[in-house]
Amino acid sequence: MRTRAAVAMAAGQPLAVMEVNLDGPKHGEVLVEIKATGLCHTDEFTRSGADPEGAFPAILGHEGAGVVVEVGPGVTSLAPGDHVIPLYTPECRECDYCLNPKTNLCQKIRSTQGAGVMPDGTSRFSMLDGTPILHYMGCSTFANHTVLPEIALAKVRKDAPFDKICYIGCGVTTGIGAVINTAKVEIGSRAIVFGLGGIGLNVIQGLRLAGADQIVGVDLNPGKVDMATHFGMTDYVNPKDVSGDMVAHLVELTGGGADYTFDATGNVDVMRTALEAAHKGWGESIIIGVAPAGAEISTRPFQLVTGRSWRGTAFGGASGRTDVPKIVDWYMQGKIEIDPMITHKLSLDEINHGFDLMHQGKSIRAVVEF
Amino acid sequence: MRTRAAVAMAAGQPLAVMEVNLDGPKHGEVLVEIKATGLCHTDEFTRSGADPEGAFPAILGHEGAGVVVEVGPGVTSLAPGDHVIPLYTPECRECDYCLNPKTNLCQKIRSTQGAGVMPDGTSRFSMLDGTPILHYMGCSTFANHTVLPEIALAKVRKDAPFDKICYIGCGVTTGIGAVINTAKVEIGSRAIVFGLGGIGLNVIQGLRLAGADQIVGVDLNPGKVDMATHFGMTDYVNPKDVSGDMVAHLVELTGGGADYTFDATGNVDVMRTALEAAHKGWGESIIIGVAPAGAEISTRPFQLVTGRSWRGTAFGGASGRTDVPKIVDWYMQGKIEIDPMITHKLSLDEINHGFDLMHQGKSIRAVVEF
Repeated sequence: MRTRAAVAMAAGQPLAVMEVNLDGPKHGEVLVEIKATGLCHTDEFTRSGADPEGAFPAILGHEGAGVVVEVGPGVTSLAPGDHVIPLYTPECRECDYCLNPKTNLCQKIRSTQGAGVMPDGTSRFSMLDGTPILHYMGCSTFANHTVLPEIALAKVRKDAPFDKICYIGCGVTTGIGAVINTAKVEIGSRAIVFGLGGIGLNVIQGLRLAGADQIVGVDLNPGKVDMATHFGMTDYVNPKDVSGDMVAHLVELTGGGADYTFDATGNVDVMRTALEAAHKGWGESIIIGVAPAGAEISTRPFQLVTGRSWRGTAFGGASGRTDVPKIVDWYMQGKIEIDPMITHKLSLDEINHGFDLMHQGKSIRAVVEF
Repeated sequence: MRTRAAVAMAAGQPLAVMEVNLDGPKHGEVLVEIKATGLCHTDEFTRSGADPEGAFPAILGHEGAGVVVEVGPGVTSLAPGDHVIPLYTPECRECDYCLNPKTNLCQKIRSTQGAGVMPDGTSRFSMLDGTPILHYMGCSTFANHTVLPEIALAKVRKDAPFDKICYIGCGVTTGIGAVINTAKVEIGSRAIVFGLGGIGLNVIQGLRLAGADQIVGVDLNPGKVDMATHFGMTDYVNPKDVSGDMVAHLVELTGGGADYTFDATGNVDVMRTALEAAHKGWGESIIIGVAPAGAEISTRPFQLVTGRSWRGTAFGGASGRTDVPKIVDWYMQGKIEIDPMITHKLSLDEINHGFDLMHQGKSIRAVVEF
């Protein structure tokens, strides 16, 4: 079949919206009509050429929602008409990782996904001249139709709006999950969130959901304060306004350091501050942000020996097929909010404008609707 | 009263064995006759002048065992004749840290202990000419008699030999506790221990106690292999024999990385290797060793984002008054071994020879008996 997609032809170039060929689902695969997709910094990381593992041409996008059109042979858990959210971290429920409750990093299709192909080693996408186009993060949601492995699709309720729940495919789950699955924040905790963008806001609402007593937000842009406060931030710190040592300021503000700190900036210097602002004896710091290629974190080991833990999270520690439908329920129940974070709606033809908005800091999430 | 002690007069000098004055216990304090004390690398770290917080003159030593001679006013949990192990990490059972099950770092007397004085701000030790001598780590076990706060003494059974259980005051508890309290290693785990000295051997026997399936020891000195094997090491790796990448070698050896890795070297490069040899998804790396002043650890944040945790431990995460008596019981029951690790016995007059043995790598633990 043919479908419309925004294709990343080469590193650093705007996406090119065009008709592409899409082969039908093979064994264990599912054809999905994408109804909406968010634009995430990770897409931009690859589009821009900053991602050392980026390969082209590819159809980017990993934060989508849609409807099953057709299932390949052997698919048992999904049927045409099901509403689904693509999962860049799949959940096969049978690999060593899926069977270990300490991790969500299913490795079943890791190598082919990283290579931009389906598990059989080939791509379903091609240019009209036959040139193969790579998949991206196993999702390729910047296409009106895409093919994914069954294990990379979470089945969700049908009454949930695509243009909101697409965000659960990455940002919402990453932020809330970092709090709930990775840090396992307890009621009454004090926390600091570095970076009040799309991930940071979801960390904040995750902390509110977890019953945190103090939720400190740190961001250089005071324009973020209203939204962060809306989602649960109790204290705002602008590093520009702190004259002395940032760690000391945060330790003072949190009465000895935070029980949990979260980096949602990707800046390795901020990651260090986040660790050192965690409470002596028990503070945990969780890295969410993606750092530039080659960047390293560092600290004195004394920080760890005196009881701080340094950890990280991917996709919020969520096992997607199990956890994503629950988060959709939470949204529909009003336990969490998404609507205010979807600041811009675009057509596929306007997708490059979405990256402009991201760079200008004007959007929290721009969503493309098909 | 007067007692004999080995006094560190100045950084880098040999200890000077001499008679010193010792004032009796004040409110909440206890006079203890030290029967035996181990020589630990931390004592040498301070003696040598490498410790930036070292202050002199001081009576070093923090790994002792002895008998209560006299209790000061207000002391309720100890009486003359009780056998005790001094605790450089006390357990007041009422500060915010003691009341938090996530940490053992009691802060009740932290500031005065760091300053080398008793909680009232003064020292009990002085030279015969009246010059005050500082306490060290709140213990000063390189003296035949010493004074400690009641909260810094673990009461232990009377049938346990002082010359063995003194080692529980630091090395044994630090190593075993890192496994049991900090890492909480599960039965069947795979682990790597970097450094097969006095701490590393105790990590190894802690791992055996915890039921680990694979216990890999890493050390440049093959002379350590027999003893480490005796304590439970299942695989030995000499970095000199590994031609390629050390992390890759260890990941291969452990079938994908270790569930738990422990640094008992204090070398920040080794700490990085330890982290990176931990299993993707769930591996935890625990820093035990004390790094040189100013040294920093570093890694790519990707290591944490893909599920590794970087943590540390002090005194093996043990709450001393509660846990140390249990470890003494385990020794007396034969659950753990100490005797083979006490490689040298010295008199107080021979104490400097003990540091020579340490530097020459000839001793695991040299113990001074009074």
